Amino acid sequence: MPTVKRDTYTPDSLLSVAVRVFNERGYDGTSMEHLSQAAGISKSSIYHHVRGKEELLRRGISRALDGLFAVLEEPRAREGRAVERLEHVTRRTVEVLMSELPYVTLLLRVRGNTETEIWAMARRREFDQRVAELVKQAAADGDLRSDVDARLATRLLFGMINSIAEWYRPDRAPLNGASGGNSAASTGSATSAQVAEAVIRTAFAGLRTH
Amino acid sequence: MPTVKRDTYTPDSLLSVAVRVFNERGYDGTSMEHLSQAAGISKSSIYHHVRGKEELLRRGISRALDGLFAVLEEPRAREGRAVERLEHVTRRTVEVLMSELPYVTLLLRVRGNTETEIWAMARRREFDQRVAELVKQAAADGDLRSDVDARLATRLLFGMINSIAEWYRPDRAPLNGASGGNSAASTGSATSAQVAEAVIRTAFAGLRTH
Repeated sequence: MPTVKRDTYTPDSLLSVAVRVFNERGYDGTSMEHLSQAAGISKSSIYHHVRGKEELLRRGISRALDGLFAVLEEPRAREGRAVERLEHVTRRTVEVLMSELPYVTLLLRVRGNTETEIWAMARRREFDQRVAELVKQAAADGDLRSDVDARLATRLLFGMINSIAEWYRPDRAPLNGASGGNSAASTGSATSAQVAEAVIRTAFAGLRTH
Repeated sequence: MPTVKRDTYTPDSLLSVAVRVFNERGYDGTSMEHLSQAAGISKSSIYHHVRGKEELLRRGISRALDGLFAVLEEPRAREGRAVERLEHVTRRTVEVLMSELPYVTLLLRVRGNTETEIWAMARRREFDQRVAELVKQAAADGDLRSDVDARLATRLLFGMINSIAEWYRPDRAPLNGASGGNSAASTGSATSAQVAEAVIRTAFAGLRTH
């Protein structure tokens, strides 16, 4: 039996605990009992804040989606050539993923059949679709190579971006310069601007020198 | 109670059923009862073939690893400039992922604490490490841009490659030409050679035309 502490949670701090547990155990594998244990407060205290775990899921996913969709409203995502807007959106998506890591991780792992999960997947597709339209427009402008299918390019770009959630850990020490570290852990700690720049260079300019 | 059919399974066909169930339910969420139901044979018939579900996990993962490590032994992965060997390994890794999709998916999802899972993660890191060495060598040869950390480049490259397992479905209709389809499903059906080529062009040459 865990020690039950006084409930000093705010909606945000309780959400932060819940999202961590969802990411560790999977949403389906998380019970209110697990949340109660992780938060160190009783289930009835949790029900004082939210109607249930699905509300916490919805709030966690909303936080990720709000961050991502806000990127699309930034001036540099709305004005100028499509390829420049696309690069801006790519860069900022990486930054949001890294700054809102637990929430975006939760969004990326959603697979289920609850109303909230179906809504989340639809919203995620909508975001992907908005980026796919930028890719198409940039291709139509002649700024992207025509021998890679636009939708395939979008998928590969998101594959690269979303995979960052698999290894990035914000609590690691900073990256040791551009020559890179020797250990697998070393890139877990690059700043989000460094990682975003690497994604831009790799995906848009390519790794090859010539 | 499912209909129990006569056990006509070979080791390979039983493995194929087990890997599908592991990927659908997660390895931890799969019981021998689930495998028995999916295969339509009794649990004791399954035990006639294997010692238990962990042996099926090990065999499934071995199939993925054997395919991936075999790529590293191909002549074009062993001879010539590092950047050419790296491109060959990238291309063939995509092809193996797509031809051995359920097995590679199983490998990529391994996270757990059984001996088999720890072994699988170590072997996967070993493969990644072998590719990372190619990246480093190609960078040292001056064939890869020096302003992207070699290990970060490796991670982004694998992120792009591995993400294919999230959307590629071999049973879909072929891709409709280079201009691409309008639906999200359309790229689910590109041939492995098309996808591999798109990865090479995106990661090594970059999407921009300039």
